[in-house]
Amino acid sequence: MYSAVIDTLIESFEGLPGIGRKSAERIAFYILESMSGDEAEKMALSIVNAKKGVRFCEHCQNLTDASPCAICSSPKRDKSVICVVEGPEDVSAIENTHEYKGVYHVLHGALSPIDGIGPEDIRINELLVRLSDSTVKEVILATNPTVNGTATAVYISKLLSPFGVKVTRIAHGIPIGSDIEYADKVTIIKAMENRQIME
Amino acid sequence: MYSAVIDTLIESFEGLPGIGRKSAERIAFYILESMSGDEAEKMALSIVNAKKGVRFCEHCQNLTDASPCAICSSPKRDKSVICVVEGPEDVSAIENTHEYKGVYHVLHGALSPIDGIGPEDIRINELLVRLSDSTVKEVILATNPTVNGTATAVYISKLLSPFGVKVTRIAHGIPIGSDIEYADKVTIIKAMENRQIME
Repeated sequence: MYSAVIDTLIESFEGLPGIGRKSAERIAFYILESMSGDEAEKMALSIVNAKKGVRFCEHCQNLTDASPCAICSSPKRDKSVICVVEGPEDVSAIENTHEYKGVYHVLHGALSPIDGIGPEDIRINELLVRLSDSTVKEVILATNPTVNGTATAVYISKLLSPFGVKVTRIAHGIPIGSDIEYADKVTIIKAMENRQIME
Repeated sequence: MYSAVIDTLIESFEGLPGIGRKSAERIAFYILESMSGDEAEKMALSIVNAKKGVRFCEHCQNLTDASPCAICSSPKRDKSVICVVEGPEDVSAIENTHEYKGVYHVLHGALSPIDGIGPEDIRINELLVRLSDSTVKEVILATNPTVNGTATAVYISKLLSPFGVKVTRIAHGIPIGSDIEYADKVTIIKAMENRQIME
């Protein structure tokens, strides 16, 4: 029961991740009632520009506006360590710690037989290509500790065994600042198994 | 830690109603990774078109692409009854019932002294202008049953008393299909007060 242009606007937001009909309506009315014409124009332009300007880095497959990306082309980064993650947001989360000095490999997904996502649907081949270069000494598997993420890590670790590189998995345990009593069983089991000697 | 075009894209979604940093990132990556170039272009165009094409109806102040809007210009609608609502989404909700045959008046907000929203910030004056026309017999106040919505209804009803029109407020009570035991106290009190004789 809106006019056609408003309906089109609502529909273009409906279906974005986490946005249903009601949220799409609220966003559409926010744009129409609270945004200036300039702001709306800027928003539209940001979509067009990002879609046109963003590509995949030829090395790490991360989203970037220049290939190779800033991380892959930085002389300060250690090219002998590759951290494998599911998505660009994971690169961002790890970069925000300012601790990791190696490079990345972005899979753009995880294996998920139920959803029909197999090895050829995520960027595993591109990882194998990078390993043909003998400078790589370690691959850290930093996929999420979910069923799909773990399956992906196991699959890749098996695939990499002929290459003779060190393959590691990020640690699982009780998150810093949280309570053991609220941790789930599997996390507690992992935290006990991977206990470390205190020095 | 994203490249500039991606950051710009994320920022243009961050701050929309209900969308924080994480949701904005998810939406941005959805646009970059899962949308086709055509779909993204269509989305951008829908924003520009809506912003350019949508205006306020000269009578009811609802958002429309033609003024007067379809409801105000329909010969089937009863111009003697005006239903006053806070926003266009309320018009849509009432229209979806296919029961109401009168016209609307959209305030675009509710009085809220805490947020500095006074009578001059919402479209109350435009309502008074419409009442100078003697065809109006009833004004139904359908603002939300919140503190602000109720205050707005009370304010408008006082303002309208010199006009000699019937001013009514939508009924409050137990929603159809819900349980009395889960209804809040104020709703139960209203439902008891407004009890009706069964026939």
